[in-house]
Amino acid sequence: MVKVVILGQGYVASIFASGLEKIKAGKMEPYGVPLADELPIKIKDVEIVGSYDVDANKVGRSLYDVVKAYDPEAPESLKGITVRKGIHLRSLRNLPLEATGLEDEMTLKEAVEHLVNEWKELGAEVFINVCTTEAFVPFGSREELEKAIEEDNRDRLTATQVYAYAIAQYAKEVGGAAFVNAIPTLIANDPAFVELAKESNMAIFGDDGATGATPLTADVLSHLAQRNRYVLDIAQFNIGGNNDFLALTDKERNKSKEFTKSSVVKELLGYDAPHYIKPTGFLEPLGDKKFIAMHIEYVSFNGAHDELVITGRINDSPALAGLLVDLARLGKIAVEKKAFGAVYEVNAFYMKNPGPKEKGNIPRIIAHEKMRMWAGLEPRWL
Amino acid sequence: MVKVVILGQGYVASIFASGLEKIKAGKMEPYGVPLADELPIKIKDVEIVGSYDVDANKVGRSLYDVVKAYDPEAPESLKGITVRKGIHLRSLRNLPLEATGLEDEMTLKEAVEHLVNEWKELGAEVFINVCTTEAFVPFGSREELEKAIEEDNRDRLTATQVYAYAIAQYAKEVGGAAFVNAIPTLIANDPAFVELAKESNMAIFGDDGATGATPLTADVLSHLAQRNRYVLDIAQFNIGGNNDFLALTDKERNKSKEFTKSSVVKELLGYDAPHYIKPTGFLEPLGDKKFIAMHIEYVSFNGAHDELVITGRINDSPALAGLLVDLARLGKIAVEKKAFGAVYEVNAFYMKNPGPKEKGNIPRIIAHEKMRMWAGLEPRWL
Amino acid sequence: MVKVVILGQGYVASIFASGLEKIKAGKMEPYGVPLADELPIKIKDVEIVGSYDVDANKVGRSLYDVVKAYDPEAPESLKGITVRKGIHLRSLRNLPLEATGLEDEMTLKEAVEHLVNEWKELGAEVFINVCTTEAFVPFGSREELEKAIEEDNRDRLTATQVYAYAIAQYAKEVGGAAFVNAIPTLIANDPAFVELAKESNMAIFGDDGATGATPLTADVLSHLAQRNRYVLDIAQFNIGGNNDFLALTDKERNKSKEFTKSSVVKELLGYDAPHYIKPTGFLEPLGDKKFIAMHIEYVSFNGAHDELVITGRINDSPALAGLLVDLARLGKIAVEKKAFGAVYEVNAFYMKNPGPKEKGNIPRIIAHEKMRMWAGLEPRWL
Amino acid sequence: MVKVVILGQGYVASIFASGLEKIKAGKMEPYGVPLADELPIKIKDVEIVGSYDVDANKVGRSLYDVVKAYDPEAPESLKGITVRKGIHLRSLRNLPLEATGLEDEMTLKEAVEHLVNEWKELGAEVFINVCTTEAFVPFGSREELEKAIEEDNRDRLTATQVYAYAIAQYAKEVGGAAFVNAIPTLIANDPAFVELAKESNMAIFGDDGATGATPLTADVLSHLAQRNRYVLDIAQFNIGGNNDFLALTDKERNKSKEFTKSSVVKELLGYDAPHYIKPTGFLEPLGDKKFIAMHIEYVSFNGAHDELVITGRINDSPALAGLLVDLARLGKIAVEKKAFGAVYEVNAFYMKNPGPKEKGNIPRIIAHEKMRMWAGLEPRWL
Ligand SMILES: NC(=O)c1ccc[n+]([C@@H]2O[C@H](COP(=O)([O-])OP(=O)(O)OC[C@H]3O[C@@H](n4cnc5c(N)ncnc54)[C@H](O)[C@@H]3O)[C@@H](O)[C@H]2O)c1
Ligand SMILES: NC(=O)c1ccc[n+]([C@@H]2O[C@H](COP(=O)([O-])OP(=O)(O)OC[C@H]3O[C@@H](n4cnc5c(N)ncnc54)[C@H](O)[C@@H]3O)[C@@H](O)[C@H]2O)c1
Ligand SMILES: NC(=O)c1ccc[n+]([C@@H]2O[C@H](COP(=O)([O-])OP(=O)(O)OC[C@H]3O[C@@H](n4cnc5c(N)ncnc54)[C@H](O)[C@@H]3O)[C@@H](O)[C@H]2O)c1
Ligand SMILES: NC(=O)c1ccc[n+]([C@@H]2O[C@H](COP(=O)([O-])OP(=O)(O)OC[C@H]3O[C@@H](n4cnc5c(N)ncnc54)[C@H](O)[C@@H]3O)[C@@H](O)[C@H]2O)c1
Ligand SMILES: [Mg+2]
Ligand SMILES: [Mg+2]
Ligand SMILES: [Mg+2]
Ligand SMILES: [Mg+2]
Repeated sequence: MVKVVILGQGYVASIFASGLEKIKAGKMEPYGVPLADELPIKIKDVEIVGSYDVDANKVGRSLYDVVKAYDPEAPESLKGITVRKGIHLRSLRNLPLEATGLEDEMTLKEAVEHLVNEWKELGAEVFINVCTTEAFVPFGSREELEKAIEEDNRDRLTATQVYAYAIAQYAKEVGGAAFVNAIPTLIANDPAFVELAKESNMAIFGDDGATGATPLTADVLSHLAQRNRYVLDIAQFNIGGNNDFLALTDKERNKSKEFTKSSVVKELLGYDAPHYIKPTGFLEPLGDKKFIAMHIEYVSFNGAHDELVITGRINDSPALAGLLVDLARLGKIAVEKKAFGAVYEVNAFYMKNPGPKEKGNIPRIIAHEKMRMWAGLEPRWL
Repeated sequence: MVKVVILGQGYVASIFASGLEKIKAGKMEPYGVPLADELPIKIKDVEIVGSYDVDANKVGRSLYDVVKAYDPEAPESLKGITVRKGIHLRSLRNLPLEATGLEDEMTLKEAVEHLVNEWKELGAEVFINVCTTEAFVPFGSREELEKAIEEDNRDRLTATQVYAYAIAQYAKEVGGAAFVNAIPTLIANDPAFVELAKESNMAIFGDDGATGATPLTADVLSHLAQRNRYVLDIAQFNIGGNNDFLALTDKERNKSKEFTKSSVVKELLGYDAPHYIKPTGFLEPLGDKKFIAMHIEYVSFNGAHDELVITGRINDSPALAGLLVDLARLGKIAVEKKAFGAVYEVNAFYMKNPGPKEKGNIPRIIAHEKMRMWAGLEPRWL
Repeated sequence: MVKVVILGQGYVASIFASGLEKIKAGKMEPYGVPLADELPIKIKDVEIVGSYDVDANKVGRSLYDVVKAYDPEAPESLKGITVRKGIHLRSLRNLPLEATGLEDEMTLKEAVEHLVNEWKELGAEVFINVCTTEAFVPFGSREELEKAIEEDNRDRLTATQVYAYAIAQYAKEVGGAAFVNAIPTLIANDPAFVELAKESNMAIFGDDGATGATPLTADVLSHLAQRNRYVLDIAQFNIGGNNDFLALTDKERNKSKEFTKSSVVKELLGYDAPHYIKPTGFLEPLGDKKFIAMHIEYVSFNGAHDELVITGRINDSPALAGLLVDLARLGKIAVEKKAFGAVYEVNAFYMKNPGPKEKGNIPRIIAHEKMRMWAGLEPRWL
Repeated sequence: MVKVVILGQGYVASIFASGLEKIKAGKMEPYGVPLADELPIKIKDVEIVGSYDVDANKVGRSLYDVVKAYDPEAPESLKGITVRKGIHLRSLRNLPLEATGLEDEMTLKEAVEHLVNEWKELGAEVFINVCTTEAFVPFGSREELEKAIEEDNRDRLTATQVYAYAIAQYAKEVGGAAFVNAIPTLIANDPAFVELAKESNMAIFGDDGATGATPLTADVLSHLAQRNRYVLDIAQFNIGGNNDFLALTDKERNKSKEFTKSSVVKELLGYDAPHYIKPTGFLEPLGDKKFIAMHIEYVSFNGAHDELVITGRINDSPALAGLLVDLARLGKIAVEKKAFGAVYEVNAFYMKNPGPKEKGNIPRIIAHEKMRMWAGLEPRWL
């Protein structure tokens, strides 16, 4: 059994909940879940025990109700859970949503305690963070982080940072927990949190779930690098119509994404080929099915110039939701293995910006094999 | 030093010769050569010592003259070599070219002897086969092959099969040689030749150089397989304007290509996703820069359907020519290592249909790392 | 009121029937119907009174049952009509279907009489031919056509040719009828039929409904021509998974399509730019939603080379079905106007190969305006 | 003879000058020039008599020298002309260029007089404005415009506005002149300038030359509109590496472009389909050959959803330069015809935002035919 708590009951979390229950009920194949039924912990062992949000329209409603807005075929088995109130800290700023958070009535420190107590009741083991993309400043020193909490410094902290801190407290008390940070806020790549995690029995998977055009770009660039083709330029656009794309029209949030998306170029090619890679725009009718377009130009043998164009329509939320079914189970395995801190072997495959900070991107196809070995599975092709 | 003999002085071979000389003269970067200057044998150590063709317009002319028709900037250092007469055996059938071959004046057996003698004079070490795509029937039993040669059975044999046989004779006599079969005719995947090779000190790299859309498809499919996305269908078109595309308008030659291109699907996905993958057409003004288009549809988590489209303009001949610069050097290494027969570690990366027969495709990104290790290099990411 | 008889109750005809009834019931917008509610004859005035097929699995079943296999939301209003038996004449050759036809029990001449009698009972006004693509040889002389019917020459005639002949007989007797030939068989472009039509009060719309990549190519090429850009080459692929694509894997049927698709190039550019334009392949999981890919390369000012690539996923049958809703109404208008023979003004917009033979393609955007004026409507932009 | 003065000797103007001279010398076909040799005024009659810039690196140098930086094959016939100093007014703000302008030493009014005098000497007939894209505020009332000049209001005016004012003065004095405004600043669409033009014998062609993805989008949307397909959304990206794309990274300049690019949607479809159409980014290695990508989704008959994706590599400057060869000649024709003010018949084909203000976009394919008739030519297809 893996007891999962969700932070941010939006599109991704709702497709996660819906798809998970359908697979458990034998009504759907586990497509999009990389390790499917290969792990010793099976998909049917994953159980959502709690869910948090700060959208006033969601807090207090049943998980079933919330999920149904994203997937009309939401399974009724989601009826038992009620969405709880989290910490907002500007998370919904500039969005057409009304925010409600624990910190409206108490200090951050008290909110942390409040959450830790709730989690103890729930018996939570793995926390999955899929809140709205944040504009943030990483810590770096643990002292600074602890001081910010202590001083209730609401301008310095983001919700994800407070959640990560709270989960560390919780993990320390109960002997272990895993934090899956599927959003760009640096946690697995922030030495302050990694240090804290190691001392607190917290495994960190992060940062920013690797879905969509970025990991595909990684493998295509690896493909070119292995043939010693010299990449002249890379342009990558993506546009979508879900709330996450809407949030990214906010310039500061957008920067968080641009950073993780771009690092891949230098790390895989070995040189910083000129590139334009950033979330591009919001176009409501596209909904969750984003449109991506990518152009790569390179030099081949004898000075020849080649060009590749990749376009696609990709369902955004299912791509991450499928990974979360693995990450929940790997989170429990990490705790069992006492692999505390940032778990690079897992992150290198599942995360856009794999922590810890000092480690970078490798080809996804290789990262996958290494991740399998970390998880105790045979590699498929190595 | 690696002494190379070319079989089929067409587009690929000419770009190979031209680019090689430019790199050796320090006038061009070794882009498109996967192992560039990493191998102990350097690019400047590769020397073309002989070249064979059967086009009456090429035989007897200087290599420089022939190469210049493909690359106006052909280096003058190619002036010393004269294109020799090979064996044709229907190679140019249905093409607007006049064929001339040794077998016009002697039996195949005599032609084999003639070639072996020429090669001894040249001190050849590695043979690179880039003749026109053939319609062929593999052997399978060595007896049948030897019988066909013995009986001068010109209908049963293709030029490539006779060349491979001749090289085996040569390798046996001189103690070792490598045959790089960059075309679809099954040699590395024909047990008859593999058996012969092992007894004759011949290393075989083959079959069909892995360039263009096929290896990219392989890595994209691996990418999808690793995420357990269920591929619904794959359509892949490519069209070009060089002589090789013209040759492929011949239905029987085309089948040779279709086979190697399609096998990749089942071998990487684990199931035979419906696909349409074959060379599609000839369109003269495209020249050597082919147009490729590929459509892949798959199921992601929670039943979502995604689509990818890849299009590109890719210079056909440089892509293979760059690989040949490695294969020439790896051929010598194989002989030095006494790695006779079909060398799977090399073939899995460089060949569309990697021999021996009993071995299939693996993701190219992984094959690259294994090939590096076989060649005595550090893997880059493993 | 427009009384319509369908010939070939397959995908196109079924989507036509289904969509038509939904629009009439106010349940669907008339998207995809070019003239929507602009014509004096409204969509609700169109009534399907008969349907013919030769697939043993369809003949005798209710239209509702047949349509439901193509559109699960088929309206119940289709329950009243039973699919009747047509003439097959090799129409289903090489397809995995069992054929049944009137000619199994009588001569072609008798079958023609039989049909004419049925149509009189039905009060048919417009006939829509959407049978399976045929391999055919046009007539040219009316005598030859009449002789073939007279002599029951089943090898010379295709079903479409016999239907067209029968409709001419019918039109002559009842004073007027229209034949919409939405398939490639030359009727509007066969002088034999045009002559016959003029004498028999038959209006012909044909040949081959203009949907998909071809009319779009026409407008894109017109766009380039108007800027005096010099087109170097055009490659166009399309692949689909419906029965029509399956039928086109038959080489001879395929040729019928290639012809109509290619003529557009010379007629719009003024020179025959090298091109590869033909139906490419069958890939079952694509279903009715075909994948198209097109590459166009041209010279712009000062010798610059530009490239355009168009790809798309396009629902094949609805594209034609929507046009048929207009063509049914325009057929009646043509009869009212006594516009007998091949009606170029209509054909130039709605047909890939607009008859009569001596007239060619013009830009679709202009053809549309002229068609409007022919139909008594104001042009939109002229 | 048409005597042309260029304002802004950048990429477009240099390709214009180079291509024009090559065609005049019989060394190049007039591809990309829509009316080629159809007009009574021939291409060889066009003569560049003056050129203005404000880049300190260009002013005072020979036209040949400047053009050569853009086209290594610049013809020597450009050697006779020296680039003169224009008016800058923030034109180069935020660009890595040093600006020099007449207004550095005199008032705007004096600069206008200075220019008018130079033009009289040159005998200028047509003025082509291809300065850097400006951030601007249109006038609207002629009084306000005249007041700004009078008061030397440098913050209110852009260079283009001052040039247009000066040309009006000049036209009034010499009896006629044409102003081709190929950039987004509203002139043909600013009632203040149109009124001034009518009183001053000035013909205005503008605004913003119609090249690249926008006019193609216009024709593709017209194509869809004519089939009554309901467009759900349109996304269009374009990225390039020339100085114009660099200038557009400036947010305010970018807005000028976004406006003209977007208006096309509502004007052609009849409803404002959700769209994202704006210049997207700067990527230096792309140079003048931009990459465009466009996605269009629409509803076809019976509720079917189709998708089109258009990508391309398009040389930016030649596309506009070719149009200028026509516009120079049409400018002279307009003056001869006394067609003063904004000439809609010309603008509807050649301009993204065809003036006057009260007139909008029509399908380009139709606009072309109307433009031909205005110019005294036979339409090709009407
Ligand atoms: N493929 C993908 O969709 C993908 C990939 C990588 C990363 N991500 C990241 O996943 C996250 C979620 O994406 P989504 O599409 O589900 O977005 P969403 O906007 O649909 O959902 C976010 C949810 O989080 C809630 N929320 C916001 N702040 C919160 C807080 N402080 N505490 C609790 N709940 C909070 C919101 O109310 C909303 O319900 C984003 O940060 C995104 O960057 C998504
Ligand atoms: N990227 C690629 O171009 C690529 C990739 C994989 C495989 N290949 C294979 O490489 C081969 C060569 O391609 P190409 O583009 O150079 O073709 P090409 O037609 O330009 O050259 C083939 C040459 O071989 C000569 N030839 C034919 N039969 C011969 C014989 N029996 N003996 C000696 N010479 C003979 C021809 O006269 C011609 O000069 C083809 O078989 C092709 O399938 C090419
Ligand atoms: N967008 C388009 O789908 C499109 C565009 C242009 C033309 N067309 C043409 O429309 C035709 C129909 O396409 P479809 O997709 O509906 O194909 P389909 O195979 O689904 O339907 C054809 C139907 O005709 C029936 N049929 C065959 N021969 C017949 C005969 N002699 N008499 C009566 N019925 C007969 C078949 O049994 C089948 O039910 C094809 O010829 C195709 O070339 C289609
Ligand atoms: N296809 C196209 O390239 C295209 C299409 C439509 C419109 N345009 C417009 O054409 C214009 C020119 O594009 P480009 O690619 O040649 O840009 P560019 O930057 O290469 O050239 C602009 C030139 O104008 C000069 N300049 C700037 N301000 C000036 C002033 N006040 N007076 C005189 N000279 C001045 C600059 O120094 C430079 O030499 C841009 O405004 C662009 O928006 C271009
Ligand atoms: Mg890191
Ligand atoms: Mg094998
Ligand atoms: Mg015709
Ligand atoms: Mg206007």
